Amino acid sequence: MTLTVYGMRSSGNCWKVEQILSLRRIHYDWIETDATAGATRTADFLKINPNGKVPAVKLVDSTILTESNAILTHFAEETSWMPPPGVARSRVMEWLFFEQYSHEPYVAVARNIMHLRGDADRQQERLAQCRAGGEHAFRVMSGRLATHPWLTDSGPTIADISLFAYSQVADQGGFDVAAFAGVASWVARFAALPGINPLR
Amino acid sequence: MTLTVYGMRSSGNCWKVEQILSLRRIHYDWIETDATAGATRTADFLKINPNGKVPAVKLVDSTILTESNAILTHFAEETSWMPPPGVARSRVMEWLFFEQYSHEPYVAVARNIMHLRGDADRQQERLAQCRAGGEHAFRVMSGRLATHPWLTDSGPTIADISLFAYSQVADQGGFDVAAFAGVASWVARFAALPGINPLR
Repeated sequence: MTLTVYGMRSSGNCWKVEQILSLRRIHYDWIETDATAGATRTADFLKINPNGKVPAVKLVDSTILTESNAILTHFAEETSWMPPPGVARSRVMEWLFFEQYSHEPYVAVARNIMHLRGDADRQQERLAQCRAGGEHAFRVMSGRLATHPWLTDSGPTIADISLFAYSQVADQGGFDVAAFAGVASWVARFAALPGINPLR
Repeated sequence: MTLTVYGMRSSGNCWKVEQILSLRRIHYDWIETDATAGATRTADFLKINPNGKVPAVKLVDSTILTESNAILTHFAEETSWMPPPGVARSRVMEWLFFEQYSHEPYVAVARNIMHLRGDADRQQERLAQCRAGGEHAFRVMSGRLATHPWLTDSGPTIADISLFAYSQVADQGGFDVAAFAGVASWVARFAALPGINPLR
Protein backbone atom coordinates (compact mmCIF):
# COMPACT_ATOMS: atom_id res chain seq x y z
CA MET A 1 0.00 0.00 0.00
CA THR A 2 1.25 3.44 -0.90
CA LEU A 3 -0.16 6.94 -0.72
CA THR A 4 -2.15 8.30 -3.64
CA VAL A 5 -1.69 11.90 -4.75
CA TYR A 6 -4.37 13.55 -6.90
CA GLY A 7 -2.56 16.38 -8.61
CA MET A 8 -1.81 18.33 -11.76
CA ARG A 9 1.87 18.26 -12.81
CA SER A 10 1.89 21.90 -13.94
CA SER A 11 0.54 23.19 -10.59
CA GLY A 12 2.83 24.79 -8.04
CA ASN A 13 0.44 23.81 -5.25
CA CYS A 14 0.75 20.16 -6.34
CA TRP A 15 4.54 20.52 -6.71
CA LYS A 16 4.68 21.29 -2.96
CA VAL A 17 3.25 17.82 -2.24
CA GLU A 18 5.61 16.04 -4.64
CA GLN A 19 8.52 17.91 -3.04
CA ILE A 20 7.78 17.15 0.62
CA LEU A 21 7.03 13.49 -0.12
CA SER A 22 10.28 13.21 -2.12
CA LEU A 23 12.26 14.83 0.72
CA ARG A 24 10.67 12.39 3.17
CA ARG A 25 11.34 9.47 0.73
CA ILE A 26 7.68 8.51 0.91
CA HIS A 27 6.49 6.60 -2.16
CA TYR A 28 3.20 7.48 -3.78
CA ASP A 29 1.02 6.83 -6.78
CA TRP A 30 0.12 9.91 -8.80
CA ILE A 31 -3.28 10.35 -10.41
CA GLU A 32 -3.08 13.20 -12.90
CA THR A 33 -6.17 15.35 -12.37
CA ASP A 34 -6.48 18.20 -14.87
CA ALA A 35 -8.28 21.06 -13.13
CA THR A 36 -8.22 23.09 -16.35
CA ALA A 37 -10.25 20.34 -18.06
CA GLY A 38 -12.84 20.06 -15.27
CA ALA A 39 -11.46 16.91 -13.63
CA THR A 40 -11.68 18.46 -10.15
CA ARG A 41 -15.41 19.18 -10.55
CA THR A 42 -16.68 15.67 -11.36
CA ALA A 43 -19.00 13.91 -8.89
CA ASP A 44 -16.29 11.33 -8.19
CA PHE A 45 -13.62 13.93 -7.43
CA LEU A 46 -15.96 16.00 -5.24
CA LYS A 47 -16.25 12.93 -2.99
CA ILE A 48 -12.47 13.17 -2.54
CA ASN A 49 -12.40 16.96 -2.03
CA PRO A 50 -15.76 18.74 -1.78
CA ASN A 51 -13.94 22.03 -2.45
CA GLY A 52 -13.05 20.78 -5.97
CA LYS A 53 -9.31 21.47 -5.82
CA VAL A 54 -6.04 19.60 -6.21
CA PRO A 55 -3.81 18.57 -4.54
CA ALA A 56 -5.45 15.90 -2.41
CA VAL A 57 -3.62 13.00 -0.75
CA LYS A 58 -5.19 9.65 0.13
CA LEU A 59 -3.32 8.00 3.01
CA VAL A 60 -3.00 4.22 3.24
CA ASP A 61 -5.99 4.07 5.64
CA SER A 62 -8.02 6.06 3.03
CA THR A 63 -7.94 9.30 5.05
CA ILE A 64 -7.97 12.22 2.60
CA LEU A 65 -5.84 15.34 3.19
CA THR A 66 -6.40 18.55 1.21
CA GLU A 67 -4.98 22.11 1.04
CA SER A 68 -1.38 22.16 -0.14
CA ASN A 69 0.00 24.04 2.86
CA ALA A 70 -1.88 21.79 5.33
CA ILE A 71 -0.35 18.80 3.53
CA LEU A 72 3.09 20.41 3.96
CA THR A 73 2.53 20.83 7.72
CA HIS A 74 1.31 17.22 7.96
CA PHE A 75 4.37 15.64 6.39
CA ALA A 76 6.92 18.11 7.83
CA GLU A 77 5.99 17.43 11.47
CA GLU A 78 9.02 16.23 13.47
CA THR A 79 11.46 17.00 10.63
CA SER A 80 13.88 19.91 10.18
CA TRP A 81 11.38 21.39 7.69
CA MET A 82 9.06 22.42 10.54
CA PRO A 83 10.42 23.88 13.80
CA PRO A 84 8.80 22.93 17.14
CA PRO A 85 5.88 24.97 18.57
CA GLY A 86 6.62 28.51 19.71
CA VAL A 87 7.67 31.64 17.87
CA ALA A 88 9.87 29.65 15.45
CA ARG A 89 6.90 27.61 14.24
CA SER A 90 4.62 30.65 14.21
CA ARG A 91 7.04 32.39 11.83
CA VAL A 92 6.63 29.46 9.42
CA MET A 93 2.85 29.64 9.80
CA GLU A 94 2.88 33.39 9.02
CA TRP A 95 4.60 32.76 5.69
CA LEU A 96 2.29 29.84 4.83
CA PHE A 97 -0.77 32.07 5.26
CA PHE A 98 1.00 34.94 3.47
CA GLU A 99 1.56 32.56 0.57
CA GLN A 100 -2.09 31.57 0.20
CA TYR A 101 -3.50 35.08 0.73
CA SER A 102 -0.93 37.55 -0.58
CA HIS A 103 1.21 35.63 -3.11
CA GLU A 104 -0.54 32.69 -4.80
CA PRO A 105 -3.73 34.61 -5.79
CA TYR A 106 -1.55 37.00 -7.81
CA VAL A 107 1.58 35.11 -8.88
CA ALA A 108 -0.09 31.77 -9.65
CA VAL A 109 -3.14 33.37 -11.25
CA ALA A 110 -0.99 35.51 -13.59
CA ARG A 111 0.90 32.39 -14.66
CA ASN A 112 -2.36 30.54 -15.14
CA ILE A 113 -3.70 33.28 -17.41
CA MET A 114 -0.50 33.84 -19.42
CA HIS A 115 1.18 30.44 -19.53
CA LEU A 116 -1.40 27.71 -18.98
CA ARG A 117 -4.49 29.26 -20.60
CA GLY A 118 -2.87 31.73 -23.02
CA ASP A 119 -5.70 34.11 -22.22
CA ALA A 120 -3.77 37.36 -21.57
CA ASP A 121 -5.50 39.41 -24.29
CA ARG A 122 -8.94 38.99 -22.73
CA GLN A 123 -7.82 39.39 -19.10
CA GLN A 124 -5.88 42.64 -19.08
CA GLU A 125 -7.62 44.10 -16.02
CA ARG A 126 -7.20 40.90 -13.97
CA LEU A 127 -3.54 40.68 -15.04
CA ALA A 128 -2.91 44.26 -13.92
CA GLN A 129 -4.31 43.40 -10.47
CA CYS A 130 -2.10 40.29 -10.38
CA ARG A 131 0.93 42.38 -11.35
CA ALA A 132 0.38 44.89 -8.52
CA GLY A 133 -0.40 42.24 -5.90
CA GLY A 134 2.45 39.95 -6.91
CA GLU A 135 5.00 42.77 -6.94
CA HIS A 136 3.87 43.79 -3.44
CA ALA A 137 4.36 40.17 -2.28
CA PHE A 138 7.84 40.03 -3.81
CA ARG A 139 8.75 43.34 -2.13
CA VAL A 140 7.69 41.93 1.25
CA MET A 141 9.71 38.74 0.67
CA SER A 142 12.72 40.71 -0.57
CA GLY A 143 12.64 42.84 2.59
CA ARG A 144 13.41 39.67 4.53
CA LEU A 145 15.58 37.84 1.99
CA ALA A 146 17.90 40.75 1.18
CA THR A 147 19.54 40.19 4.58
CA HIS A 148 18.68 36.57 5.48
CA PRO A 149 19.22 33.31 3.57
CA TRP A 150 15.80 31.80 4.31
CA LEU A 151 12.32 33.10 5.11
CA THR A 152 12.67 32.21 8.79
CA ASP A 153 15.58 31.88 11.20
CA SER A 154 15.08 28.08 11.37
CA GLY A 155 16.94 27.33 8.12
CA PRO A 156 15.02 26.07 5.09
CA THR A 157 11.48 25.10 6.13
CA ILE A 158 8.12 24.43 4.51
CA ALA A 159 7.72 28.23 4.40
CA ASP A 160 10.47 28.22 1.75
CA ILE A 161 8.97 25.20 -0.05
CA SER A 162 5.58 26.90 -0.14
CA LEU A 163 6.78 30.26 -1.45
CA PHE A 164 9.25 28.66 -3.88
CA ALA A 165 6.36 26.81 -5.55
CA TYR A 166 5.19 29.75 -7.66
CA SER A 167 8.23 32.02 -7.26
CA GLN A 168 10.27 29.51 -9.30
CA VAL A 169 7.96 30.00 -12.31
CA ALA A 170 6.96 33.64 -11.74
CA ASP A 171 8.45 34.64 -15.13
CA GLN A 172 5.73 32.52 -16.74
CA GLY A 173 3.29 35.00 -15.21
CA GLY A 174 5.27 37.95 -16.54
CA PHE A 175 7.12 38.81 -13.30
CA ASP A 176 10.75 39.91 -13.39
CA VAL A 177 12.01 38.34 -10.16
CA ALA A 178 15.50 39.77 -10.88
CA ALA A 179 14.03 43.15 -9.89
CA PHE A 180 13.69 41.81 -6.33
CA ALA A 181 17.30 40.96 -5.53
CA GLY A 182 16.61 39.15 -2.27
CA VAL A 183 14.04 36.92 -3.94
CA ALA A 184 16.20 36.14 -6.99
CA SER A 185 19.17 34.99 -4.90
CA TRP A 186 16.90 32.96 -2.60
CA VAL A 187 15.28 31.16 -5.56
CA ALA A 188 18.76 30.12 -6.79
CA ARG A 189 19.86 29.16 -3.26
CA PHE A 190 16.78 27.07 -2.59
CA ALA A 191 16.88 25.32 -5.99
CA ALA A 192 20.47 24.22 -5.23
CA LEU A 193 19.57 22.46 -1.96
CA PRO A 194 19.99 18.67 -1.95
CA GLY A 195 16.76 16.90 -2.82
CA ILE A 196 14.99 19.89 -4.35
CA ASN A 197 13.49 19.16 -7.77
CA PRO A 198 12.33 22.42 -9.38
CA LEU A 199 9.13 22.41 -11.43
CA ARG A 200 11.13 22.74 -14.66
CA MET B 1 4.03 44.36 30.66
CA THR B 2 1.15 43.15 28.51
CA LEU B 3 0.71 42.22 24.88
CA THR B 4 -0.18 44.88 22.34
CA VAL B 5 -2.69 44.13 19.60
CA TYR B 6 -2.80 46.36 16.51
CA GLY B 7 -6.26 45.84 15.11
CA MET B 8 -9.45 47.27 13.67
CA ARG B 9 -12.56 46.54 15.76
CA SER B 10 -14.80 46.00 12.73
CA SER B 11 -12.47 43.36 11.22
CA GLY B 12 -13.26 39.65 11.51
CA ASN B 13 -9.56 38.82 11.16
CA CYS B 14 -8.85 41.04 14.19
CA TRP B 15 -11.84 39.57 16.06
CA LYS B 16 -10.09 36.16 15.88
CA VAL B 17 -7.21 37.60 17.91
CA GLU B 18 -9.46 39.24 20.51
CA GLN B 19 -11.35 35.95 20.84
CA ILE B 20 -8.38 33.60 21.35
CA LEU B 21 -6.72 36.01 23.82
CA SER B 22 -10.00 36.34 25.73
CA LEU B 23 -10.43 32.55 25.85
CA ARG B 24 -6.87 32.22 27.12
CA ARG B 25 -7.49 35.08 29.65
CA ILE B 26 -4.42 36.89 28.31
CA HIS B 27 -4.56 40.65 28.88
CA TYR B 28 -3.61 43.03 26.09
CA ASP B 29 -3.57 46.66 25.08
CA TRP B 30 -5.45 47.42 21.87
CA ILE B 31 -4.21 50.01 19.39
CA GLU B 32 -7.02 50.80 16.97
CA THR B 33 -5.50 50.83 13.50
CA ASP B 34 -7.94 51.84 10.77
CA ALA B 35 -6.92 50.04 7.57
CA THR B 36 -9.71 51.80 5.66
CA ALA B 37 -8.12 55.17 6.55
CA GLY B 38 -4.58 54.14 5.53
CA ALA B 39 -3.26 53.49 9.04
CA THR B 40 -1.73 50.14 7.97
CA ARG B 41 0.30 51.79 5.19
CA THR B 42 2.21 54.38 7.22
CA ALA B 43 6.00 54.10 7.52
CA ASP B 44 5.65 53.41 11.25
CA PHE B 45 3.14 50.60 10.77
CA LEU B 46 5.13 48.99 7.94
CA LYS B 47 7.95 48.54 10.47
CA ILE B 48 5.49 46.45 12.52
CA ASN B 49 4.11 44.50 9.54
CA PRO B 50 5.82 45.02 6.17
CA ASN B 51 2.77 43.45 4.50
CA GLY B 52 0.66 46.41 5.71
CA LYS B 53 -2.14 44.43 7.34
CA VAL B 54 -3.83 44.08 10.70
CA PRO B 55 -3.97 42.19 13.01
CA ALA B 56 -0.45 42.25 14.41
CA VAL B 57 0.49 41.29 17.96
CA LYS B 58 3.53 42.59 19.85
CA LEU B 59 4.61 40.12 22.55
CA VAL B 60 6.14 41.33 25.80
CA ASP B 61 9.66 40.74 24.40
CA SER B 62 8.71 42.91 21.36
CA THR B 63 8.42 39.94 19.00
CA ILE B 64 5.77 40.74 16.38
CA LEU B 65 3.31 38.11 15.15
CA THR B 66 1.17 38.65 12.04
CA GLU B 67 -1.45 36.77 9.98
CA SER B 68 -4.64 36.14 11.93
CA ASN B 69 -4.65 32.37 11.49
CA ALA B 70 -0.97 32.08 12.45
CA ILE B 71 -1.78 34.08 15.59
CA LEU B 72 -4.60 31.61 16.32
CA THR B 73 -2.21 28.65 16.01
CA HIS B 74 0.32 30.43 18.24
CA PHE B 75 -2.04 31.02 21.15
CA ALA B 76 -4.01 27.76 20.76
CA GLU B 77 -0.96 25.49 21.11
CA GLU B 78 -1.38 23.05 24.03
CA THR B 79 -5.05 24.00 24.56
CA SER B 80 -8.23 22.16 23.57
CA TRP B 81 -8.60 24.64 20.69
CA MET B 82 -5.77 22.92 18.77
CA PRO B 83 -5.43 19.11 18.69
CA PRO B 84 -1.97 17.51 18.83
CA PRO B 85 0.00 16.77 15.63
CA GLY B 86 -1.35 14.10 13.32
CA VAL B 87 -4.50 13.86 11.21
CA ALA B 88 -6.58 15.68 13.87
CA ARG B 89 -4.35 18.76 13.67
CA SER B 90 -4.09 18.54 9.89
CA ARG B 91 -7.91 18.72 9.67
CA VAL B 92 -7.75 22.03 11.57
CA MET B 93 -5.00 23.27 9.26
CA GLU B 94 -7.07 22.39 6.17
CA TRP B 95 -9.93 24.58 7.37
CA LEU B 96 -7.58 27.45 8.30
CA PHE B 97 -6.17 27.52 4.77
CA PHE B 98 -9.66 27.05 3.30
CA GLU B 99 -10.73 30.11 5.28
CA GLN B 100 -8.00 32.37 3.92
CA TYR B 101 -8.20 31.14 0.31
CA SER B 102 -11.81 30.10 -0.32
CA HIS B 103 -13.93 32.00 2.25
CA GLU B 104 -12.43 35.29 3.45
CA PRO B 105 -11.63 36.70 -0.04
CA TYR B 106 -15.34 36.44 -0.91
CA VAL B 107 -17.32 36.73 2.34
CA ALA B 108 -15.17 39.40 4.00
CA VAL B 109 -14.67 41.36 0.78
CA ALA B 110 -18.42 41.47 0.07
CA ARG B 111 -19.02 42.76 3.61
CA ASN B 112 -16.24 45.30 3.15
CA ILE B 113 -17.82 46.62 -0.06
CA MET B 114 -21.43 46.65 1.15
CA HIS B 115 -21.20 47.38 4.87
CA LEU B 116 -17.93 49.15 5.64
CA ARG B 117 -17.39 51.14 2.45
CA GLY B 118 -20.97 51.40 1.15
CA ASP B 119 -19.56 51.02 -2.34
CA ALA B 120 -21.91 48.37 -3.80
CA ASP B 121 -23.16 50.48 -6.71
CA ARG B 122 -19.70 50.87 -8.21
CA GLN B 123 -18.54 47.29 -7.56
CA GLN B 124 -21.27 45.15 -9.05
CA GLU B 125 -18.92 42.82 -10.95
CA ARG B 126 -16.68 42.26 -7.92
CA LEU B 127 -19.73 41.66 -5.72
CA ALA B 128 -21.05 39.03 -8.15
CA GLN B 129 -17.71 37.19 -7.93
CA CYS B 130 -17.87 37.42 -4.12
CA ARG B 131 -21.41 36.07 -4.14
CA ALA B 132 -20.46 33.01 -6.22
CA GLY B 133 -17.26 32.30 -4.29
CA GLY B 134 -18.84 32.81 -0.88
CA GLU B 135 -21.84 30.60 -1.67
CA HIS B 136 -19.46 27.85 -2.82
CA ALA B 137 -17.58 28.16 0.49
CA PHE B 138 -20.81 27.95 2.49
CA ARG B 139 -21.89 24.87 0.49
CA VAL B 140 -18.59 23.16 1.34
CA MET B 141 -18.95 24.06 5.03
CA SER B 142 -22.59 22.96 5.08
CA GLY B 143 -21.62 19.59 3.62
CA ARG B 144 -19.66 18.98 6.79
CA LEU B 145 -21.86 20.83 9.30
CA ALA B 146 -25.17 19.31 8.22
CA THR B 147 -24.09 16.08 9.93
CA HIS B 148 -21.42 17.18 12.45
CA PRO B 149 -21.51 19.80 15.22
CA TRP B 150 -18.07 21.29 14.51
CA LEU B 151 -15.76 21.60 11.53
CA THR B 152 -13.48 18.83 12.79
CA ASP B 153 -13.96 15.76 14.98
CA SER B 154 -11.88 17.38 17.78
CA GLY B 155 -14.73 19.52 19.17
CA PRO B 156 -14.62 23.29 18.78
CA THR B 157 -11.15 24.36 17.60
CA ILE B 158 -9.48 27.38 16.04
CA ALA B 159 -10.90 26.12 12.72
CA ASP B 160 -14.34 27.07 14.08
CA ILE B 161 -13.04 30.39 15.48
CA SER B 162 -11.48 31.24 12.13
CA LEU B 163 -14.51 30.43 9.98
CA PHE B 164 -16.94 31.97 12.48
CA ALA B 165 -15.13 35.31 12.14
CA TYR B 166 -16.79 36.34 8.88
CA SER B 167 -19.64 33.79 8.85
CA GLN B 168 -21.14 35.59 11.88
CA VAL B 169 -21.51 38.81 9.85
CA ALA B 170 -22.07 37.33 6.38
CA ASP B 171 -25.48 39.00 6.11
CA GLN B 172 -23.64 42.34 6.11
CA GLY B 173 -22.11 41.14 2.82
CA GLY B 174 -25.51 40.18 1.44
CA PHE B 175 -25.28 36.43 2.15
CA ASP B 176 -28.33 34.50 3.36
CA VAL B 177 -26.67 31.99 5.68
CA ALA B 178 -30.10 30.49 6.47
CA ALA B 179 -29.96 28.97 2.98
CA PHE B 180 -27.09 26.77 4.21
CA ALA B 181 -28.75 24.90 7.06
CA GLY B 182 -25.60 23.31 8.43
CA VAL B 183 -23.84 26.66 8.59
CA ALA B 184 -26.76 28.51 10.18
CA SER B 185 -27.12 25.99 13.03
CA TRP B 186 -23.33 25.93 13.56
CA VAL B 187 -23.19 29.75 13.81
CA ALA B 188 -25.84 29.66 16.55
CA ARG B 189 -24.15 26.72 18.32
CA PHE B 190 -20.72 28.36 18.27
CA ALA B 191 -22.03 31.76 19.42
CA ALA B 192 -23.58 30.04 22.47
CA LEU B 193 -20.30 28.50 23.66
CA PRO B 194 -18.96 29.84 26.99
CA GLY B 195 -16.47 32.64 26.45
CA ILE B 196 -17.42 33.42 22.86
CA ASN B 197 -18.06 37.12 22.26
CA PRO B 198 -19.59 37.61 18.80
CA LEU B 199 -18.56 40.64 16.75
CA ARG B 200 -21.98 42.24 17.35
